[in-house]
This record gives sequence, C-alpha cells and structure tokens, in this order.
Amino acid sequence: MEFTAQQIADYLHGTIEGNPQVRLHDFAKIEEGRSGCLSFLANAKYEHYLYETASDAVLVNEDFRPRESVRTTLIRVPNAYAALAQLMQLVDSMKPQRKGVDSTAFVHPSVSVPDDCYIGAFAYVAEGASLGTGCSVYPHVYIGSSVSVGEKTTLYPHTTVYDGCRIGARCIIHAGAVIGADGFGFAPDADGYNKIPQMGNVIIEDDVEVGANTCIDRAVMGSTIVHRGVKLDNLVQIAHNCTVGSHTVFAAQVGMAGSSHVGEWCQFGGQVGLSGHIKVGDHVSLGGQTGLLSNVKSGSVLLGSPGMPVRDMLRTSVILPKLPDMSRRIDQLEKEISELKEICKNSKP
Amino acid sequence: MEFTAQQIADYLHGTIEGNPQVRLHDFAKIEEGRSGCLSFLANAKYEHYLYETASDAVLVNEDFRPRESVRTTLIRVPNAYAALAQLMQLVDSMKPQRKGVDSTAFVHPSVSVPDDCYIGAFAYVAEGASLGTGCSVYPHVYIGSSVSVGEKTTLYPHTTVYDGCRIGARCIIHAGAVIGADGFGFAPDADGYNKIPQMGNVIIEDDVEVGANTCIDRAVMGSTIVHRGVKLDNLVQIAHNCTVGSHTVFAAQVGMAGSSHVGEWCQFGGQVGLSGHIKVGDHVSLGGQTGLLSNVKSGSVLLGSPGMPVRDMLRTSVILPKLPDMSRRIDQLEKEISELKEICKNSKP
Amino acid sequence: MEFTAQQIADYLHGTIEGNPQVRLHDFAKIEEGRSGCLSFLANAKYEHYLYETASDAVLVNEDFRPRESVRTTLIRVPNAYAALAQLMQLVDSMKPQRKGVDSTAFVHPSVSVPDDCYIGAFAYVAEGASLGTGCSVYPHVYIGSSVSVGEKTTLYPHTTVYDGCRIGARCIIHAGAVIGADGFGFAPDADGYNKIPQMGNVIIEDDVEVGANTCIDRAVMGSTIVHRGVKLDNLVQIAHNCTVGSHTVFAAQVGMAGSSHVGEWCQFGGQVGLSGHIKVGDHVSLGGQTGLLSNVKSGSVLLGSPGMPVRDMLRTSVILPKLPDMSRRIDQLEKEISELKEICKNSKP
Repeated sequence: MEFTAQQIADYLHGTIEGNPQVRLHDFAKIEEGRSGCLSFLANAKYEHYLYETASDAVLVNEDFRPRESVRTTLIRVPNAYAALAQLMQLVDSMKPQRKGVDSTAFVHPSVSVPDDCYIGAFAYVAEGASLGTGCSVYPHVYIGSSVSVGEKTTLYPHTTVYDGCRIGARCIIHAGAVIGADGFGFAPDADGYNKIPQMGNVIIEDDVEVGANTCIDRAVMGSTIVHRGVKLDNLVQIAHNCTVGSHTVFAAQVGMAGSSHVGEWCQFGGQVGLSGHIKVGDHVSLGGQTGLLSNVKSGSVLLGSPGMPVRDMLRTSVILPKLPDMSRRIDQLEKEISELKEICKNSKP
Repeated sequence: MEFTAQQIADYLHGTIEGNPQVRLHDFAKIEEGRSGCLSFLANAKYEHYLYETASDAVLVNEDFRPRESVRTTLIRVPNAYAALAQLMQLVDSMKPQRKGVDSTAFVHPSVSVPDDCYIGAFAYVAEGASLGTGCSVYPHVYIGSSVSVGEKTTLYPHTTVYDGCRIGARCIIHAGAVIGADGFGFAPDADGYNKIPQMGNVIIEDDVEVGANTCIDRAVMGSTIVHRGVKLDNLVQIAHNCTVGSHTVFAAQVGMAGSSHVGEWCQFGGQVGLSGHIKVGDHVSLGGQTGLLSNVKSGSVLLGSPGMPVRDMLRTSVILPKLPDMSRRIDQLEKEISELKEICKNSKP
Repeated sequence: MEFTAQQIADYLHGTIEGNPQVRLHDFAKIEEGRSGCLSFLANAKYEHYLYETASDAVLVNEDFRPRESVRTTLIRVPNAYAALAQLMQLVDSMKPQRKGVDSTAFVHPSVSVPDDCYIGAFAYVAEGASLGTGCSVYPHVYIGSSVSVGEKTTLYPHTTVYDGCRIGARCIIHAGAVIGADGFGFAPDADGYNKIPQMGNVIIEDDVEVGANTCIDRAVMGSTIVHRGVKLDNLVQIAHNCTVGSHTVFAAQVGMAGSSHVGEWCQFGGQVGLSGHIKVGDHVSLGGQTGLLSNVKSGSVLLGSPGMPVRDMLRTSVILPKLPDMSRRIDQLEKEISELKEICKNSKP
C-alpha cells in the first residue's frame, strides 16, 4: 500500500507543510527514518531528530513550532499520537483476515461456529463452548468446556482458557496467556496443605487486552473479574477473586495477590506487587516495582516498596546512599554534645 | 447437585442453628452471598457481612459468638475453613472424570497407557515415558523422552516436560508450566558465552502443585528437586540445582537463582527473589518482594530488599519518607553545635 | 558412554594426578559425587568437598594446590570450568539428533524444508516462513507467516513466533517463549485506550538463547533487536523497540520497558526492572531486583531500587534497620542542644 502525504492529511483532517505528493508506504520511528516512510513527533524530547530524519513526512501537533528549518514534509493534526493510532488502525484493518475452520482443529459437535470465525490448526474447542461472530482462534489454542468468547475477540497461539470462563467482545489475548487456572488456595494441617478446589471462574469484559504468558486465576467461588477496557501487559499475575476496574492499565510483570481490588483508570508500572485483601482506589498511579501492603486512596501517586508518595520517594532515594555518613555524623554529634555538657557543667558557677 | 443444610452438617459432623431444611446448590463468598448458596466465615474481618449476607447458610467455627442477630442458617464446625475445603473436595470429586486416549494424541508405541488415564487431543508422549494410573494429560501437553508421571497426576494444557524429568503422584501442573528447560549456565570467554550443556533433570515429588507458566530448570548435573507437598503459584522461577523443601509454599512470581536451597514449611510472598548458592532454613517466612543475598536461619520472618526482620522493616519504612528532613536536621544540629562550641570557648575564663 | 581419566585428560590437554585408568560414565557435582562420575572444582568455596567426594575424578585448575591429601584422581587443566563446558558439549553432541518432518505437522506448501531439519508433531509453520538447515522445530511450536529461522536453531515445544519476526543461526528458544507479540501501546482518550497497531517485528541475531516463557514484543514500527550472543533466562520481558547489546546476559524475570537500550556485555541479576526510554551503557552490572529510572554509564555496578553503586547500597542496607533509632537520637540531640543553649544563654555574663 502506498499513500501520498496529501491523502493522509485528508484522511486525518490535517494540513500539509511541504510536498503534498511524497509517496509513503511504511511507518518508521523518527530517529530511524527512511525514504518512503511516515514518522511522528509527539514527545518534545525527540524534536532534534525532526531536523535530520530521512523520513519523507512527519505527523506533528498543529501547534508545533519548529526551532530550525525542516526539510521533510509536515502533516499537522490536532493530536499527532492519536492520529498515528488512527492511521495505523486503518492500515491494520486492510490486512487480509484469516477465516474458516482448519481441518485439524478439534471443535466439539455441540459448538456452533459462526461463518466468519477463524479456528486454526490443532486448536481445541471443548463441549458447550460458545464463540462470537468474527472471533479468531489461532493454532494450539485450548478453549475449555462452557467457555464463552465474545465477537471479534482474538486468541493467539497457546492461549489456555479453562472451563467455564467468559471472555467479552473485541478482546485480544496474546500467546501463552492462561485464563482460569486454579487460584492458590490451601488449608494447612499438620501433614501438609489440603487443596481448596477453585469452583469459580474468570470473567473478562469487553475491549480487554491480555499480554503474552499473563495468568488470571479463577475464583475460589464467584468470579475473578477484569472489567471493560483493561489493558494487561505480558507476564502479569492476577490472583483469585481479584477485580480490576475499567480502563486500568498494568505494565509487565505486575502481580496482584488474592481478593484485592483495583479501581478504574489506574496505571501500574512494571513489577508492581499488591498484597492480598487490599483495595486500591481509582486513578491511582504506581511507579515500577512499587509494593503495596494496605489500601490506597483514589488519585494517589506512589513509588517504592512499601509505596510512598512519589515525591517523598524520589527525595528519599537521593538521601539513601548518605545514610552511613548520616549515622557517623549522629555519633559525632552525640560525642560533641556530651563534651559540651561537661564544659558547661564545669563552667557553671 | 443440591444438599440441605442438615445433610452438610451431618457430613461435616457439625451442628445447625436455624433452618436445617434450606437447600444449597452452590458456594458464594459471604460478601457476594446469594439465595441457594453456602458461604463461610473464618476471618473475623469479614464478620459484618454475616448479618447481611443473602446466602442461605454459613459455615462458622463452633466457638463463634455473633454480636448481632443472624438471619441465615449457621452450620457450626470445629474449623470452618478446613470444613469448606473438605466439602469442596467432595463436590469436586463428583465431577465426571475425563478418560481415554484421544485419537489425535501422539503416544509413542513404547509407552504403555494405564486404562484409566486421560490423554487429550494433540498431546505428545515421547519414547520411554512412563504414565501412572489415573493420570490426566490434557490437550497440547508435551511429555519428553523417558519422563515419568506418577499416578493421579494432572498435566493441564500446554505443559512442557523436557526429557528425563520425573513427576510424582497426585501432582497438579497448571497450563504453560515448563519443567526441565536448560539451566542458565555459560562459561565466558573473549568471544562470548559458551553454553554448558545441562545434563541433569528435575525431580518433582508427590503432592506438589505447580502454577501456570511456572518454570523449573533442569540441573547442570544431578537434579533440581521440588520435595513432597510443595505448592508453587504462577510464574515462579526455580533455577538449576535448587532444592525446595517439603510443604514449602511460594506465591506468584518468586524467583530462586541457581544452586540455592530452601527448607521445609517455608512461606514466600509474591515476587520474592533469592540469590544463587544460598541456604534458607525451615519455617522461614518472607514478605512480598523480599530479596535475599545470603543464608537465612530457620524461623526467620523477613521483609525488604535486602531482607531484614519484618518488625525492623515496618518501623524503618515509616521513617524512610522523613529521611530528607532528618538530613536537614543533622545539618542544623552541626551548625548549632559549632556555634555553641564557639560560645563556650569564648565564655571560658 | 564411558571414558578413562586418561582419555579425558588427553582430550582436554590436561595432566593426571592419581589413577589414569578409572572409568567415568557420568558427571556429578563435587558435593554429590558418586562412583564412576567426573566432578569439577572451580570455586574455592567448595574445596573442602574435594577431600571427601565419592567421584572417581575431579577437574581442577592446573595451579590448584590441595591443602590436604586427595584420594580421587585429579585432572589438571588450564581452566576447570571451561574444560567442563568443552567436555559436556562433546557428550551432548553425541546424542542422536531428531530429524524429519512429522506427518501430523502443518508446513505451508510455500515453505521449503531443508533435509536435515526436524519438525515435530503438531508443529505449525505458516506461509512464507524460511527455515535454515539443521534447525529443530519441536512439537506444538507455532511459526507465523514470513518468519525466518536460522540454521541449527532450536525451537522447543510451545514456542510462539508471530508473523514477520527473524531468528538467527544457532539460537536456542526454550519452551513457551513468545517472540513478537504486540508491544504495549495505546493512545488514551476520554472513552478508554485506543490500540496502536504494532507494525514492526523482532530481530534475534545469531547465538542467542531465550529462556522458557520469556516474552519479546514486536516494535510499534521498526524492530525490537536482541543482538548476537545475548543470553536471556526464563520469564524475562523485553518490551517494544528495545535493543539488547551483544553478549549481554539477563537472569530470570528481568523486565525492560519500551524503547530502552542496553549495551554490550552487561549482566543483570534476577527481577531487575528498567524504565522506558532509558539507555544503559556497556559492561554494566546490576544486582538482583535493581530498578533503573534513568540512564546509566558504561561500567557501572549498581544495586537497589532506584539503583545506586553497589558499595553504597550494601553499606546503606546495614544502616537501614537502625533508622528508627537514628530518628530518636536526632530528637534527643535537638532537645539537648536546646537545653545547652539555654544554659549558655543564662551563663553569659
């Protein structure tokens, strides 16, 4: 596929500065620009690349004012990053869709497969499963009994969905994700741990993306729930009976222990860890590797383990390497105070 | 299935307070109680839910004394949590068992399959593997050469067991777990790292549960050993030549570096990390995200990275945000001491 | 296979001390020595095992001087650890190689399979994929469209390689690894997050080893690149548009956020976390659980979260548990200073 800068500007309701006829057939990061490519500039930190990029056109915010002369063609739009997303979605939607049921797939006779579904080689769809229109089940996917998969949802290779779990519409589940394995529940006695069968399930609502090799455990009873619009990166752990609120985003390797609840529109950095049985409000932002031991109010911005307000943590971390020195200075102060007291005592009349 | 409260009380050797004839057909958490459901109350923190739950019966400890009037039926038992486990195991055991070898599975002719095994579609069982009676091998499982799997052990979809590893009886291995991949061993030279072939295996003893996408690496020589009754949650990493003692429990995302040894009856929180070549005693408890750089004595209760006694860590973490302030106060103290010294010097006769 | 100590010494250009005719048929760690086994001693910490090992021969460095009498046969070589690697590689190379395409594998007709490849049962090789000579594709592997796999590369079971990714020669990809899943990129608006299609790919150069269940995401545009000779342990996360320099080694559960760059010959301990858009120099060493928020110079040796020079961190961590005490001492000092001032004021003439 190839478009002119003008065609792209028209599609995005943008304006051109430079040559409207340059032909573009691929995307490139601005610092890796190549001839025939469209780049974008949304982060001011990368502005200097604009003046040397080899890309033939660059999407910029309409209020952007270059500090130097620009050789490439600029396409001005209200929001360069959102416009990029829109454009890439267009290109992506033009890719041919896989359709049909592969002859090697196993689909239980009780399952009715809508016409426009894709079910790849060696996929397994168990008894009583329900598949929405336009869903894609890649090779080697395992769909357990009575699982429901919403319309236009994609399950990439090696996804496992245990019995009875429900996945909404327009979800994307990446390779190796495991939905609905047993929660980690045991009753100890003198001889060891007795397994508590995990009788609940997992419910994933619409428009959720689940990263590769991420695990979401089934509830002991009731449901572990991932609400609408949540985005989970790779290798995330969601334990049994957790809930994750709408439009919350977890970076890779986040872990939530059992029966914890996270509100809406939160953002967690990588490797964040939450204790069990705690409640995190809405719009909470946690820096990478933050650890939470207790409830957190809506709007908090925390960092550290245990988490503290991010400003405190950044200031504290500057002082931390000076701790040994501080300790010595306190020793010295105590010595000097003690000497001064002696002097004062002696000097008293 | 449906039982009356009386039938359940009889099975558990408990006593009824309320209507013995209420009919129960499902379990529900006490805070999510529904008509027709049985709940339980083991943690005093949740007591207030008892007075408003919609569940028709609740398991409680026999010595529990309600502070308000109770509308639901109580079933009193010596230990509500253990009774719940017992009851759920009963229900779980009534589920129909999958049996037989799927026609699409590959089982090497050298392997004899006991009558009551289940081997699902697209499962792969290599030459010389040995399968115990009543074991379940789900679709897409890979069992390498000369692997042995004990009786009544379950391997969920996409489990990989590399050549020569041994899994005991009554184990549960969740989806995507990888048993016996190469340990991470290289001998560096000027041109890069030379792989040290990992010639050992993994031994998992009886009654072990391994979480989804957890990895247990094979030994460089000898065996990586997970002893009897160990429970590992999801996304755990056990490196080559480690040993994990009986009845030890790891929460999700714990990582053990190579040749480290953990004793019996330990409990590690999520995201704990252990250095290589260290030894952790028995009954050691580590809070989430704890990092260990050296040996730890039996009975220790640690938190932090590096780990310190949990009381110290909790006290320290209260002070941490005050560090910048402490630093300024020390500066001020030094200034004042210096002034006082000057005064004292001058005031000396 | 069985060799005499003399044969092994000859192969390694080493010298014998003891019985050159002892017969060796397996390897064992020196502390787990058994009759018929060869062990090695490279780490002085393990020297005491030499005097009691049941192994019939032990590889040692040629300059090693025992402090006690030795009963076992010594094989002296310039570098015991490198010699061990060499010997194990020899034994490993003698194992029979799997060859041929299993009848149940799916290989798209457009793909030409070199004669000496192995393609196992239920493996899936999509349209336009390219396979190098001597590569091994284990059962249940998924190779997407237009993927290229270099010569002698091994893909273990349940590996997923998404469309368009490139893997070099002599790589080893362990079970469950996911190469090329979508990077984690979304443009937020008032209604939620809009997916930014990830149009780039992953390039893995030659001689790379990727651990089990490790995830390397495809670039949003351009490529995520893992350079020559890199070794990644299990459960590692490499986000979109990252680069990892040649001969860099990541222990298990390391996570790199998007668009970060790590230089050559670095060593990261387990559970290290990197923020996005940062640059780490060459020969950087990070201790386990270290967190990086900003750029790091070549040659740095850091520990902690946020990372600080390892000496500072170790000293600081000794003081940390004393923080509450330090805080009290500062309170006390302020009180005493205040009293002294009062005294001095009063004692002034």
